[in-house]
Amino acid sequence: MIILGIDPGTASVGYALLKGDGRIKPELLSAGLLDVRSRENAQRMAEIHRALERIIKQWRPDRLSVEKLFFAKNTKTALAVSEGRGVILLTASLAGLTVYEYTPLEIKCAVSGDGRADKLQIQKMIRFIFPQYAGNARDDVFDAIAAALTCYFSANNNR
Amino acid sequence: MIILGIDPGTASVGYALLKGDGRIKPELLSAGLLDVRSRENAQRMAEIHRALERIIKQWRPDRLSVEKLFFAKNTKTALAVSEGRGVILLTASLAGLTVYEYTPLEIKCAVSGDGRADKLQIQKMIRFIFPQYAGNARDDVFDAIAAALTCYFSANNNR
Repeated sequence: MIILGIDPGTASVGYALLKGDGRIKPELLSAGLLDVRSRENAQRMAEIHRALERIIKQWRPDRLSVEKLFFAKNTKTALAVSEGRGVILLTASLAGLTVYEYTPLEIKCAVSGDGRADKLQIQKMIRFIFPQYAGNARDDVFDAIAAALTCYFSANNNR
Repeated sequence: MIILGIDPGTASVGYALLKGDGRIKPELLSAGLLDVRSRENAQRMAEIHRALERIIKQWRPDRLSVEKLFFAKNTKTALAVSEGRGVILLTASLAGLTVYEYTPLEIKCAVSGDGRADKLQIQKMIRFIFPQYAGNARDDVFDAIAAALTCYFSANNNR
């Protein structure tokens, strides 16, 4: 099973690919940022779509895991993030991936065991699980790994 | 020139197609609601995408006009609407349409001459411009016609 975790943002979109059969620690195949540069809204949506299509074609994930948004401190930013999120859900759906959505609380609990964990705690936990990881250390990338891990752990619990 | 106006909503998505050369009153080619039924988020995005692709294939519009969202009374609803909005922008962009976005104020001003116009005033004005229109009378459809009209009028002003 391969899980694609995505962290949608306005400035950048993080992704992570986890592989595992559920009995062992998953393997982190790849993680980084989608190549999205346009400041123009519709063009940006097309860039997210195409970059994601490329990743799906390369790695053939079975599942998409992405954070659910319910509320926002900055509405304007959240609305822009949601537009990208819609494109991410669409792209995964068209490619036949099963889509899983998790609240920030669910992700924090799944990764660190603490629903109030901050970004640093999440990063520490991910570095503990994947001590070899030497890739992009941006928040968006760690959030994408966290989303993928949540789906991986939840899938195992559901068996 | 053919303009596709879209009103993205959570329950339904309105569309309208206007045709004109800019010197005369535009012709309302078609208006209605996209066939979107799924309650499941990713599936819903795929339905919006496919329904819009069909309309674009049938009418070959040159431009997409859609309302811009900045803030929201109900954040949860606005985030869901924005996801659909992202898919609409993507679908238009992939099909080569030029995308125009307008604030609610711009649309109200363009259609009724009054930025504080309510839904009823907008409907009245649209019925005055298109007295023959006997199609779907849902708010979402009138909002889609209003978005398309705004683009039509603005395009003329820019010549």
